[in-house]
Amino acid sequence: MSGRADGGPVAILAGSGRLPALLADELGRRGRPFRILAFRGFAERDVRRRADRVIDLLDIGGALSTLADWGAAGVTMAGAVSRPSPAAALGAFAYFRNRRELEDILSRGDDHLLRKVVERLEERGFPVLGVRDLAPGLLAREGAYGAVAPAPEDDSAIALGLRLLRDLSPYDVGQATVVNGGRVVAVEGPEGTDRMLRRVRAFSGAGWFTRAPDRAGVLVKAAKRGQDIRVDLPTIGPRTVENAARAGLRGIAIGAGSTLVLEEARTAAAADRLGLYVIGVPWSPEETSP
Amino acid sequence: MSGRADGGPVAILAGSGRLPALLADELGRRGRPFRILAFRGFAERDVRRRADRVIDLLDIGGALSTLADWGAAGVTMAGAVSRPSPAAALGAFAYFRNRRELEDILSRGDDHLLRKVVERLEERGFPVLGVRDLAPGLLAREGAYGAVAPAPEDDSAIALGLRLLRDLSPYDVGQATVVNGGRVVAVEGPEGTDRMLRRVRAFSGAGWFTRAPDRAGVLVKAAKRGQDIRVDLPTIGPRTVENAARAGLRGIAIGAGSTLVLEEARTAAAADRLGLYVIGVPWSPEETSP
Repeated sequence: MSGRADGGPVAILAGSGRLPALLADELGRRGRPFRILAFRGFAERDVRRRADRVIDLLDIGGALSTLADWGAAGVTMAGAVSRPSPAAALGAFAYFRNRRELEDILSRGDDHLLRKVVERLEERGFPVLGVRDLAPGLLAREGAYGAVAPAPEDDSAIALGLRLLRDLSPYDVGQATVVNGGRVVAVEGPEGTDRMLRRVRAFSGAGWFTRAPDRAGVLVKAAKRGQDIRVDLPTIGPRTVENAARAGLRGIAIGAGSTLVLEEARTAAAADRLGLYVIGVPWSPEETSP
Repeated sequence: MSGRADGGPVAILAGSGRLPALLADELGRRGRPFRILAFRGFAERDVRRRADRVIDLLDIGGALSTLADWGAAGVTMAGAVSRPSPAAALGAFAYFRNRRELEDILSRGDDHLLRKVVERLEERGFPVLGVRDLAPGLLAREGAYGAVAPAPEDDSAIALGLRLLRDLSPYDVGQATVVNGGRVVAVEGPEGTDRMLRRVRAFSGAGWFTRAPDRAGVLVKAAKRGQDIRVDLPTIGPRTVENAARAGLRGIAIGAGSTLVLEEARTAAAADRLGLYVIGVPWSPEETSP
């Protein structure tokens, strides 16, 4: 922990998507003080409106002095920020030791980038907190969401997907895969889950022999082993369910305890409406850090 | 070996692409007798014209009786055949033990499908031969094709890609990956190398921090361990070089001894014209079968 007062607010570094608002709501409900530092161009309008300060993603000096002014007891990174453009990265040079270090960090995987940001924040005395620390109720639990359950034949596809994600953990490549029967049909790269599902959709209409026009296949999504789930949490929500349905899949399996379910009620409702299963499955969280 | 005369012709089962013609040319040069059995809808026009017989992909009875008529000393599968449509698969039921077995085979990976076809051919007494047996000169050798060589910084990206492909071997997913610096940016699924490269191209223009507009990244392509390279050989050619250039890559690395280089001279010329390296790298061929 830092030398700062533990009674200080939690600073929410807000990127895009629904998570910053959900987290702020949850902290409000628990009576835990918080402040929002929103990233211009990423945070959604309602988050920017609630924000205590809006800054540029790479204004790292500004972010650090704001955190110090607030006497923040900890920092949490919520929502997505895509990689900065080369021009934007110029502003961050002062923060990194030299140009070569910054280039090296930016050319490697997301894990590596986020790990470096976390290291720097902790060096400055701001502990980095995750959803598990602040709002564990937002994380996936084991069992079915909604009314549909996987059939026995889905279980082996889910198990295959989990094994693949485990073996891919050292590579900082996707957090998700699509398995159809005994066949891995896609591995997520930096394009993200929605685009991967669009790719799968293109196959399923293209004369591949599945049980078409029946649904087939499952999206399996889980944190990499060793992934810092404080800063990079696999996420699903209602849109993921809609895209999985469009891709012709039968359901979604997520690693319990280390996957974020955005808007659980709407996610379950979408699954029921579209006839998909969404299930939290056991996933060795002890091997993610910390 | 089968009980048939070893002096019988090699039967080339010809799918799409340039390989069937290249193989026929090579066998002709070596004075080895051959016959071509072309698959309607897959084999290219010039191959169909040279073919001794043209049949439907799933007319397995017709294929087997043709091979017997020819007294084929062996069979080689050359060129791509995409998976059959459900309607076409109906014609193949008689050949497989039952509908369930066929469904099972078709729902699994390509490796599994091809392995079953090879098993059936060998059960009938036709040894299955590969490019390595018939025309080893078409396989990648170690070293650079063309004038451009990888820079020292490319070597670690190539090594990372090879490690990833090795660890993915049990999964019957792609034969190729794209690595940019320390980051895996794509893993090939059933969409194939050309479509994977198109996906990478979409990233590289999208504000990702690479050394844009400089080229960055490498396509790494190699046979899976345990893959039967007699029937499913990773392949590159001039078009692969063109697509890699469009995707903003610096070069291509291929597993020597187990990757096919179609039209080597045109491939090297394309690499030189576009400023890419194409290099054959050592790749444990002893762990592919047989």
